[in-house]
Amino acid sequence: MNDTFLQACRGERTAHTPVWFMRQAGRYLPQYQKVRNKISFLELCKTPELAAEVTRQPIDIFGFDAAILFSDILIPMEAMNLDLDFHEGKGPIFAHPVRSHKAVDELVVPVPEESVPFVLETIRLLRSTLQIPLIGFAGAPFTLATYLIEGGSSKVFLHTKKMMFQEPKLYHNLLAKITACTSAYLQAQARAGAQALQLFDSWVGILAPCDYEEFALPYVRSIISDLRAVTDVPIIYFANNGATLTRLTTTVGADVLGFDWRLPIGDAVARAGNHAVQGNLDPLALFLPKEKLEARIKSMLTDSRDARGYIFNLGHGILPETPPDQVKIAVEAVHRFSGKS
Amino acid sequence: MNDTFLQACRGERTAHTPVWFMRQAGRYLPQYQKVRNKISFLELCKTPELAAEVTRQPIDIFGFDAAILFSDILIPMEAMNLDLDFHEGKGPIFAHPVRSHKAVDELVVPVPEESVPFVLETIRLLRSTLQIPLIGFAGAPFTLATYLIEGGSSKVFLHTKKMMFQEPKLYHNLLAKITACTSAYLQAQARAGAQALQLFDSWVGILAPCDYEEFALPYVRSIISDLRAVTDVPIIYFANNGATLTRLTTTVGADVLGFDWRLPIGDAVARAGNHAVQGNLDPLALFLPKEKLEARIKSMLTDSRDARGYIFNLGHGILPETPPDQVKIAVEAVHRFSGKS
Repeated sequence: MNDTFLQACRGERTAHTPVWFMRQAGRYLPQYQKVRNKISFLELCKTPELAAEVTRQPIDIFGFDAAILFSDILIPMEAMNLDLDFHEGKGPIFAHPVRSHKAVDELVVPVPEESVPFVLETIRLLRSTLQIPLIGFAGAPFTLATYLIEGGSSKVFLHTKKMMFQEPKLYHNLLAKITACTSAYLQAQARAGAQALQLFDSWVGILAPCDYEEFALPYVRSIISDLRAVTDVPIIYFANNGATLTRLTTTVGADVLGFDWRLPIGDAVARAGNHAVQGNLDPLALFLPKEKLEARIKSMLTDSRDARGYIFNLGHGILPETPPDQVKIAVEAVHRFSGKS
Repeated sequence: MNDTFLQACRGERTAHTPVWFMRQAGRYLPQYQKVRNKISFLELCKTPELAAEVTRQPIDIFGFDAAILFSDILIPMEAMNLDLDFHEGKGPIFAHPVRSHKAVDELVVPVPEESVPFVLETIRLLRSTLQIPLIGFAGAPFTLATYLIEGGSSKVFLHTKKMMFQEPKLYHNLLAKITACTSAYLQAQARAGAQALQLFDSWVGILAPCDYEEFALPYVRSIISDLRAVTDVPIIYFANNGATLTRLTTTVGADVLGFDWRLPIGDAVARAGNHAVQGNLDPLALFLPKEKLEARIKSMLTDSRDARGYIFNLGHGILPETPPDQVKIAVEAVHRFSGKS
């Protein structure tokens, strides 16, 4: 059993630096494409045997030190009574954006065992075979809310910020429901066997710190505090593009803080204080020639040496266009330079 | 003559805090729409009388303390021998992305007086009538390069970073040509009468600091250094989403640094050192109710009091959906709270 990932999460010394990549199970892998060609993305998420298979693929191929459940942050949102669809090239679409008190009232806070049993079954299947830790995850409430309010992806998040600024009561009612759903969802994942839990706050980087503090932070804190009461699995909080939020993100109660590539890893370590640190190679840096890619990884390992636990990762999800050979080079470099025999 | 804007640029005390908004001449104004309905965006940029008219509109309506030339950062790129088109909703499109040595070789470095005389004529027209300073502008080379390489707007900038990482010589050849063009373009604007010049680095926030230092910074520095040799107009550098780049952006040689809303204005002032500071209200904060909008502006004025020159602005361009009445509230609040009689 390779437990380096969990040791690093807890701030313990590790024999080598553990590494996993966000979206490591995904479109850049021909093996994934082969499964995905036969089934839609949502169906794949909902079929435990196949979801477990694609979760395992990058572990078997590259030797990552942690696996992350193959799923999507919007799966539990669909279960709140929303029509979710994924359009090729357009991303997720909610046919009925949530922008009124009526729409918020109609959202249900589902029981995960009833609404998303396939997620929990995937976790159980994986735990019975994996030799490395399994990470469960959810979207953080603000990020989830943007999808519900905008009806999908967005650039400027007009509807979300309009609701925050003009109808704060409606906004907070919505966030409270999303938070209740997410809290129950992550607790169920821990019960099913997830050994660490990551909260993805992918869009929080569009908020001024004062707005983050009022409209996003309290809900993250609440989920983590609820989790602490029932489980001791490490909790990772990834605030994407959150360099100006670190004075606040260090207060959410997470064990590990994830960083995107905009903040040099040495600065991230300095700001993270007592937290373990995860990140933060630019996913596009995987396109560097071997020698330069290895040099960049080497200096990240040097610059992160004072971290209270360090987990090597990308600063964002791996891109579909990434050559798998480059992923191999990166994972091997992290292991070799950090002393894995 | 109201020179508060130029005084603030030079770090001098001002009778009140000057204010202008990025994209203050634009689609949110019915008066602009009326002009724009009769003519395409590119034609409007190329018709001096109309470009001057829409430049003046927000000054007459709201009493901004500076005007900015109505144009687009891609205008001088088209003049390099590229097919540029603007599609409604899709933004700018270059039909032939620049991704090969041949494509770079075919770019010309035009003489602004011959290639974009309409821009210089617009500046002269405006100078003959405006009672406030006129800002000229250009895109910064990295930002311009992303449009040329991607063929338009982008999310992850795959082609740009691939070229940087895999064909650095090609990338640097391209950037050198864009820089020569931009340098000549800004010098011509100063000769025509622009009283300050802003470089927009809209996309530089996707770069890790080490990549910014290698692939973007040298070209900004070169343009500013060339300008210093021929003109003493203040130079503003706006690195959008650049909070992690401030250790580097403070070295480009600008007089004024512009900031987006992610960095609290007090932190921006602290990091800007000897520079004047411009920014940085979230454009979406213009949707706040009057009282809260005014309170936010008031605290920005307080938090920026130690700046060596402060210019109130948004942290990014104003959105087309913004109610003009809210712009009026904001401009009046900046003036009233900063002591304009």
